[in-house]
Amino acid sequence: MIRRRRMVRNYDPTRAVPAELVSRLLEHAIRAPSAGFSQGWGFLVLEDAADRELFWQVTTPPEAAGSSWLDGMRRAPLIVVAHSNRDAYLDRYAEPDKGWTDRDEARWPVPYWHIDAGMASLLMLLSAVDAGLAGCFFGIPPECTASYRNAFGVPSAFTPVGAISIGYPAPDVRSPSLKRGRKPVDEVVHRSRWDRPD
Amino acid sequence: MIRRRRMVRNYDPTRAVPAELVSRLLEHAIRAPSAGFSQGWGFLVLEDAADRELFWQVTTPPEAAGSSWLDGMRRAPLIVVAHSNRDAYLDRYAEPDKGWTDRDEARWPVPYWHIDAGMASLLMLLSAVDAGLAGCFFGIPPECTASYRNAFGVPSAFTPVGAISIGYPAPDVRSPSLKRGRKPVDEVVHRSRWDRPD
Repeated sequence: MIRRRRMVRNYDPTRAVPAELVSRLLEHAIRAPSAGFSQGWGFLVLEDAADRELFWQVTTPPEAAGSSWLDGMRRAPLIVVAHSNRDAYLDRYAEPDKGWTDRDEARWPVPYWHIDAGMASLLMLLSAVDAGLAGCFFGIPPECTASYRNAFGVPSAFTPVGAISIGYPAPDVRSPSLKRGRKPVDEVVHRSRWDRPD
Repeated sequence: MIRRRRMVRNYDPTRAVPAELVSRLLEHAIRAPSAGFSQGWGFLVLEDAADRELFWQVTTPPEAAGSSWLDGMRRAPLIVVAHSNRDAYLDRYAEPDKGWTDRDEARWPVPYWHIDAGMASLLMLLSAVDAGLAGCFFGIPPECTASYRNAFGVPSAFTPVGAISIGYPAPDVRSPSLKRGRKPVDEVVHRSRWDRPD
């Protein structure tokens, strides 16, 4: 399923995602690793047409309205938004076994709260492919975050890391970005030393 | 493999990871999604004992030396460090089809460069499990980043997002963090609205 996965941006609007598959995706999402087992994540699941309509309304900036991207994406019968909660991580690592009682974010090499929510998202995408579904992971534009939070009652402690549209795939236009080509392993892998001459 | 995966912190030091499996892990890593297909990642692969020894030397803060965690981890015959390159993403999105010519990081809801490198890491962990191997994803402490970069010639444009120890599993002590218990789906999933009363 790793090799078969790609982002699909158009869906069959006549086929809902069966409830047992929605459950499976979510059960797999929470199998993602998380630093200190913090599990500082939260998922908003939107299935009703009115909820999905509201989602697209509040997260689409004016310049993106009416795009063919949006047309295809709006046909997805399921949207899951993955969120991260930094405070859950800072709290977890302030506990005695970790001892970072200053809750200083500078102790973290990178924001693992976002990365862990991203990993959970990837597990949903892989599970979707495995179940014959397709999905697309995309960001909510920063200028839309406030209206998104407001529309769905998302507390300020939770940051939307990315939304995933999910459904049965319909013919779609592949991302033009793919024309760039995949960088081969040899170009991105360094052995023993980064700068070792081959 | 999603359900079987867990972080394993002890390895059989007598069994190297066969070259074809190392290749497979890396081939799978580069199947991770990336924003705009930026693929702004880089992987440092350490297999020789001297390279691995150097890695542990430069990335272990004094207070962690001699821990049982480190004893088990040092037995891993393979270490892959996943890096992100923010500039590759800012450059990619400054291209005409994206048009963010100001290269302003504030346009990004979250740092997808780190998230994508994290997703690539998760694909290596899953592929390891699938091949009968085991792995552990962990961060390089910020205070060790400079010495790590210096030891392996890693350019400053690349941030180590996490290292992965990989090998054939040996009996290990499960992370005490697991005693916290996995948060059930119902606790982290919200339907229709975050604050909807059930």
